[in-house]
Amino acid sequence: MRFTLEHTDPRSSARAGVFRTDHGEIRTPIFMPVGTVGSVKGVFHRDLVEEVGAQIILGNTYHLYLRPGTETLYKAGGLHRFAGWDRPILTDSGGFQVFSLTGIRKLTEEGCRFQSHIDGSRHLFTPENVIDTQRLIGADIMMAFDECPPGTAEYGYAAQSWARTSRWLERCFDRYRRTECPYGHHQSLFPIVQGCTYADLRRQSAEFVQQFDADGYAIGGLAVGEPAPVMYEMIETVNAVLPQDRPRYLMGVGTPVNILEAIERGVDMFDCVMPTRNGRNGMLFTSEGIVNIRNRKWAEDFSPIDPMGHTFVDTHYSKAYLRHLTVAGEMMAAQIASLHNLGFYLWLVREARGHIVAGDFAAWKTEMVEKLGRRL
Amino acid sequence: MRFTLEHTDPRSSARAGVFRTDHGEIRTPIFMPVGTVGSVKGVFHRDLVEEVGAQIILGNTYHLYLRPGTETLYKAGGLHRFAGWDRPILTDSGGFQVFSLTGIRKLTEEGCRFQSHIDGSRHLFTPENVIDTQRLIGADIMMAFDECPPGTAEYGYAAQSWARTSRWLERCFDRYRRTECPYGHHQSLFPIVQGCTYADLRRQSAEFVQQFDADGYAIGGLAVGEPAPVMYEMIETVNAVLPQDRPRYLMGVGTPVNILEAIERGVDMFDCVMPTRNGRNGMLFTSEGIVNIRNRKWAEDFSPIDPMGHTFVDTHYSKAYLRHLTVAGEMMAAQIASLHNLGFYLWLVREARGHIVAGDFAAWKTEMVEKLGRRL
Ligand SMILES: [Zn+2]
Ligand SMILES: [Zn+2]
Repeated sequence: MRFTLEHTDPRSSARAGVFRTDHGEIRTPIFMPVGTVGSVKGVFHRDLVEEVGAQIILGNTYHLYLRPGTETLYKAGGLHRFAGWDRPILTDSGGFQVFSLTGIRKLTEEGCRFQSHIDGSRHLFTPENVIDTQRLIGADIMMAFDECPPGTAEYGYAAQSWARTSRWLERCFDRYRRTECPYGHHQSLFPIVQGCTYADLRRQSAEFVQQFDADGYAIGGLAVGEPAPVMYEMIETVNAVLPQDRPRYLMGVGTPVNILEAIERGVDMFDCVMPTRNGRNGMLFTSEGIVNIRNRKWAEDFSPIDPMGHTFVDTHYSKAYLRHLTVAGEMMAAQIASLHNLGFYLWLVREARGHIVAGDFAAWKTEMVEKLGRRL
Repeated sequence: MRFTLEHTDPRSSARAGVFRTDHGEIRTPIFMPVGTVGSVKGVFHRDLVEEVGAQIILGNTYHLYLRPGTETLYKAGGLHRFAGWDRPILTDSGGFQVFSLTGIRKLTEEGCRFQSHIDGSRHLFTPENVIDTQRLIGADIMMAFDECPPGTAEYGYAAQSWARTSRWLERCFDRYRRTECPYGHHQSLFPIVQGCTYADLRRQSAEFVQQFDADGYAIGGLAVGEPAPVMYEMIETVNAVLPQDRPRYLMGVGTPVNILEAIERGVDMFDCVMPTRNGRNGMLFTSEGIVNIRNRKWAEDFSPIDPMGHTFVDTHYSKAYLRHLTVAGEMMAAQIASLHNLGFYLWLVREARGHIVAGDFAAWKTEMVEKLGRRL
């Protein structure tokens, strides 16, 4: 068994566990920084390990497939060796990116044809070749190829889409079982629960995926425009059906508040571009609330960026200096903000874990949620 | 005396010395990374100190004057405290930037009127207020306000320009002697030798500046388009006149080969944007030659970026991975290349110093110059 559930919060569905991979253990709940092309934007691997405390990063199959390509990755000995990152890696299936290429993609039962955003070249992703690609990347956790319908999808489309995703899931596992990791380590394959905002589809989907007895399960198609309470309701619906003894991964979510609400409802794994993308735009997440560092009010605030922060930038640099760099458009501003925000996200999930283990998660979470959403 | 000359190479004019500031010692020959707005592009202060071994950085008065402005810098307690950099800082006078603003500046005996490149606002730099600004920045080494004539200037213009720069220099020192550092540390003021590529003007200029008994002297107006042999000749001409017991700073130069040639001719200090700017474009300087990392030939070269390199990126990341990040336009590529190149430049001047002290600089330099210019 890859996953061990160690603690369950007495007053909520929050859980603390450990997921074991051949590249090391992941203590859950965990946040996974997004490393699109094998690099978390603006943050050295060294700082991800030593400052942020990242235990696993995410790579995007779509981007890695186009560049550097599977041939180069295979010759390098997989993404771990290519990128010089020896901790666990999770890859998405590329579905989300491909379905976002409106106008230059065509969806059929076979898979999805699309044109590269880089050079317009034509490609086909199928459930089978997406598994092959992730085998060559060498991800510790691979994701099934699924369709992500828009957040506004009507019931008919959502049901049809889910049915296709289910057929694709069988093809994914079929390929997965007939192949192995070219580099000799174990690769898990997580199915993705879909069903938009329809509780019965979500329940059916969460039932269906369990036949594959996977190492973990993902919840996809949320945080795509629906109100947060609807997202939380869907998480509750799905987690009531998924097995207790496997990790649940909520894909592409979200704000610090979203993460605590989802942890309370039994989610174990998260990824999101928000800490780096919003950081590049001057938004800092802190334990006291959100700072827009471009705001004039910080121009002469020479206090540390985040006196409670845990990365070296938090106490080394001042708010006024970071504002100055941000306004001047210096890349250093993006580096500082990205490192700070990732450090904060990883601190948040470590703290959550500590409070789950200590048994006072619910009270801590209520107090934190009040602060985290404030605009400073 | 701020400067102590410790060693002179028996076979050339190369020198090893120490320049003392209230923020620490600078062992010469030295290269100073350029930190335009108080930040070396893409490189954390921590890495400048721990990886690169930078002993002093350069700030641009023009940029700092416009943003964050002297009022903010004064309230912060100067640039050292504002930026969180407690080692020495040198500031240029802003002249070079202002004279580059063709069309939106007007040069008179009083000084230079110009419009901000940021918001078009109108400003006046004079020899006096440029000293005031550098006092407020708090630089350990301030530069005199001079005109930088174009590399192609004719003799008449060069002579006229040098005459005005001389009058400005008197006004700079007049203001300098009547003011003091608002933060209580010593601030040196270096005159700048000008005279384009005319040996007699250069000699006159190098004689003239010595009346101020400055802590050091700069050589400006070179590497602006003239052939390298002409630049070397001007350096020899000027250094034959400048006092032995003061450091000589060659402004805005240059390639690794330029630097070794200038060290051989008795230059002690250098700055240049080349390691960071060219790094951002994928050019790596190494002890074996120059690498254009965009080149297809590195796509599957999984060997370290620079096995002889002294920063952590040199051995942690491979050429193929750095090429991948560069081609994908990831900011991490700029971070890695900038850190590598600065690490290489500082290694080069440390090595040069070591060979001067050991007495075998000339032989080492000849061997290095052959390798440094090669295209790998
Ligand atoms: Zn997100
Ligand atoms: Zn230069």
